[in-house]
Amino acid sequence: MVVRKIPEEKAAGEKSNNKSELGITARKEFDFSEWYPQVIQKAEMIEYGPVSGCMIIRPYAYSVWEVVQSFLDTQFKKSGVQNAYFPLLIPESLLRKEQEHVKGFSPEVAWVTEHGDTKFEERLAIRPTSETIMYDSYKKWIRSYRDLPLRLNQWCSVVRWEFKHPVPFLRTREFLWQEGHTVFATKEEAMKETFEILDIYARAYEELYAVPVLKGRKTDTEKFAGAVYSNSLEILMPNGRAIQGCTTHLLGQNFSKAFDITFLDKEGKKQYAWQNSWGFTTRSIGIMVAIHGDDKGLVLPPRIAPIQVVIVPILFSNKPTINEKILELARDMKKELKTIRVELDEREEYSPGFKFNYWELKGVPLRIEIGPKDLEKSHVVIVRRDTGVKESAPVSEVTIRVIKLLADVQDNLYNKAKKFLNDSIVKAGSLSELKSVVDDGKIASVHWCESNECEAKVKDETGAKSLNIPFKQPDIKGNCFCGCGRKAEKMIYFAKSY
Amino acid sequence: MVVRKIPEEKAAGEKSNNKSELGITARKEFDFSEWYPQVIQKAEMIEYGPVSGCMIIRPYAYSVWEVVQSFLDTQFKKSGVQNAYFPLLIPESLLRKEQEHVKGFSPEVAWVTEHGDTKFEERLAIRPTSETIMYDSYKKWIRSYRDLPLRLNQWCSVVRWEFKHPVPFLRTREFLWQEGHTVFATKEEAMKETFEILDIYARAYEELYAVPVLKGRKTDTEKFAGAVYSNSLEILMPNGRAIQGCTTHLLGQNFSKAFDITFLDKEGKKQYAWQNSWGFTTRSIGIMVAIHGDDKGLVLPPRIAPIQVVIVPILFSNKPTINEKILELARDMKKELKTIRVELDEREEYSPGFKFNYWELKGVPLRIEIGPKDLEKSHVVIVRRDTGVKESAPVSEVTIRVIKLLADVQDNLYNKAKKFLNDSIVKAGSLSELKSVVDDGKIASVHWCESNECEAKVKDETGAKSLNIPFKQPDIKGNCFCGCGRKAEKMIYFAKSY
Repeated sequence: MVVRKIPEEKAAGEKSNNKSELGITARKEFDFSEWYPQVIQKAEMIEYGPVSGCMIIRPYAYSVWEVVQSFLDTQFKKSGVQNAYFPLLIPESLLRKEQEHVKGFSPEVAWVTEHGDTKFEERLAIRPTSETIMYDSYKKWIRSYRDLPLRLNQWCSVVRWEFKHPVPFLRTREFLWQEGHTVFATKEEAMKETFEILDIYARAYEELYAVPVLKGRKTDTEKFAGAVYSNSLEILMPNGRAIQGCTTHLLGQNFSKAFDITFLDKEGKKQYAWQNSWGFTTRSIGIMVAIHGDDKGLVLPPRIAPIQVVIVPILFSNKPTINEKILELARDMKKELKTIRVELDEREEYSPGFKFNYWELKGVPLRIEIGPKDLEKSHVVIVRRDTGVKESAPVSEVTIRVIKLLADVQDNLYNKAKKFLNDSIVKAGSLSELKSVVDDGKIASVHWCESNECEAKVKDETGAKSLNIPFKQPDIKGNCFCGCGRKAEKMIYFAKSY
Repeated sequence: MVVRKIPEEKAAGEKSNNKSELGITARKEFDFSEWYPQVIQKAEMIEYGPVSGCMIIRPYAYSVWEVVQSFLDTQFKKSGVQNAYFPLLIPESLLRKEQEHVKGFSPEVAWVTEHGDTKFEERLAIRPTSETIMYDSYKKWIRSYRDLPLRLNQWCSVVRWEFKHPVPFLRTREFLWQEGHTVFATKEEAMKETFEILDIYARAYEELYAVPVLKGRKTDTEKFAGAVYSNSLEILMPNGRAIQGCTTHLLGQNFSKAFDITFLDKEGKKQYAWQNSWGFTTRSIGIMVAIHGDDKGLVLPPRIAPIQVVIVPILFSNKPTINEKILELARDMKKELKTIRVELDEREEYSPGFKFNYWELKGVPLRIEIGPKDLEKSHVVIVRRDTGVKESAPVSEVTIRVIKLLADVQDNLYNKAKKFLNDSIVKAGSLSELKSVVDDGKIASVHWCESNECEAKVKDETGAKSLNIPFKQPDIKGNCFCGCGRKAEKMIYFAKSY
């Protein structure tokens, strides 16, 4: 992986010993909303595009997406899902076929109305999601129970004209995702898949991004437009706002009835099919950045880091012979570490100190320093990005140490984030307690009667939204937290949200 | 890879011994324009979508694209290219920045004019290609010679509202592609890349698709809008029409001047950068289908075939014990062939004859038949899709025979196509000779004076277009074929074209 060099103006900044242009000038803890865009821009993950809300994903972020894509794609295929591609443009009449669905999406749709100087007879939507265009074909392909299950996925971009104040990755008008759309003969099979796919998603968050998640069911108010139910992963961001990580939806027979997707069962009886849809987006990159980053910039979990190790040689202009030996050792080490994504920073125009800052900003998990004294002792210094801890390692042991340390960094990031999440979930016994928890940037866990009414009350009086109803429920006793007098049925999470 | 089962209505066709619904009813040689859409639809490669020209790529075709994508992506990355993602929507003002470019594309652009019920202040183009939106960022990222080369690629779809009569894969209004956009400090480096990438493209056509290509330079009339020159791969289709396989473009400084992409060279002098763009599309799938297919359906080269081998057990309803043994052997063989993409067709509701036709339609390179007599002799029958030749093989040798046969099929398809291409290139010494060659569905090779005038004359009088000027040139003697009296400078190809 080749990394773009720093633009000249930044190098000039270095020469005058002024780190501010390269470094992050906002503190994450106190000014998250300034810290976040600085990090993703200065670490060269994104660039703002000419259309508000439509950002450019630069190679340093795109390669993170490629790692996650590859993991998800492999898991989907293992479970029997096939990839396909459906058109970008959806006729308005098709989008309007399922009533709940179109209500949910129509305010957000970007419309194509003309080509060249010719008006289209009917407006065409840029896909906000592909249920309608896919199911229009599904009805042609499905005749018999033998044609089921039909499980297709596509990797593409979608456009939703929402968010007054877009935030790269987290709230964008165009984003990349995969959308799975599956059809089953029975409700049971469909339900089972909504959990299986959610587990794959949870692995991507927890094992790759090192981001712990809350698994559960969305309330009816918060579920996907047109779904019977939605399962979700929820994450608490460092600024005390929760964000939906991804979702799987049981669509039931809502779409199969609207699109006439039927099959003959084994007895030759016509049945409406059962359907799911599920998606995972580039929002996940932004969540990972927000969870792990610090005041020096990105902190990337090794499993998704485009560069896992950077080697920085410490050279002195008055020691050309030693420099050559250091570089030789560094180059050998790079070759030796070939199973790892490693970069050797040989740039002559920058000082070691500049390079340390640069690669810290980029969040590279490990830095190997090799200077004249290291060379003498046949040692190197390895520095962890997550803790800043330095250790010395004999040259002969570098590979084994690096592999161990990468695993440690991955674990440490996850455990730290897990502790933050656990510490942030607070039980609340009343609406006022809930308000004080969410105002404090935490997640309120309450016992709830399952009524939309009490849920709506929370939103009105505190501004918090329900996240989800955890699959793992405690024993529920007593009445609804909200004072309605009804019996509590479920434990549910509320928090201020994105 | 799981294959969708045949819909009920086709099974019904089989029962009445009527093959016509499943089989291809048009002859490739006599009615290519009916044969081609039948093959790609019946083999489940595509489905027509609700918007004319925007087709659905089904798993059986998409998985071919995934093989080609994986090859190209690996080659690009080896050569130092990085992937990124730029927005789908381009403001009209940006699209208009390079004059030649916008002239070439504006009639084809699909425009987004509103979201929900709100009009946009400026129309947004759906990307017909991404030069303008990418270069708008490149100018921000490039400052010094140290920032070069910058070599980015993206995988996406593009929309061009062209073609009155769309043909799936070959002439579509939305298609999938990759577009590489690169920036260099010198013209020499940029030129070199246009050849290197073309070589990678040629390998995809020749080594994966088994489709031989003609490499050369487009004429000024036929080059990309905004380019200094375009290199292309050209292919002759079985219907006697040539088609452009893909292109690489030297953009020179046309865009860097329009977008102000400059850098400070080693002497600190400001220079305009040199740029290229290059793309490879899903059109290639259609070309491959057209070249190799026959009256029974698809014939897929093994390297891109989603299923390389299908095992068909020959079962008899009165021999349940033998059937079980045959199935056992078939299942073992499937496991044994695990490095190969193999499918075992265990469906009970179809006869062996039906299955033979089905998998021939799908173009699977090899079929293994196992019947009671084979079981007895511990042999199987292997049938090649390309030649229909059957051979018997001992069970113990199946893996080695299959690997050898797959390589033979791949070679044979290429050689057959190469012979067709070679036999179709005919020298012409005059305009009337050229006309008779192209009217005969062949490629005319002529010696040309390089004037636009003589090129235009061919188009006017014969309807043929120039394909390209081959990189490998013979000795050129005498005058231009066209009777203009000027000295001939180059050998060039003309043919009727898509």
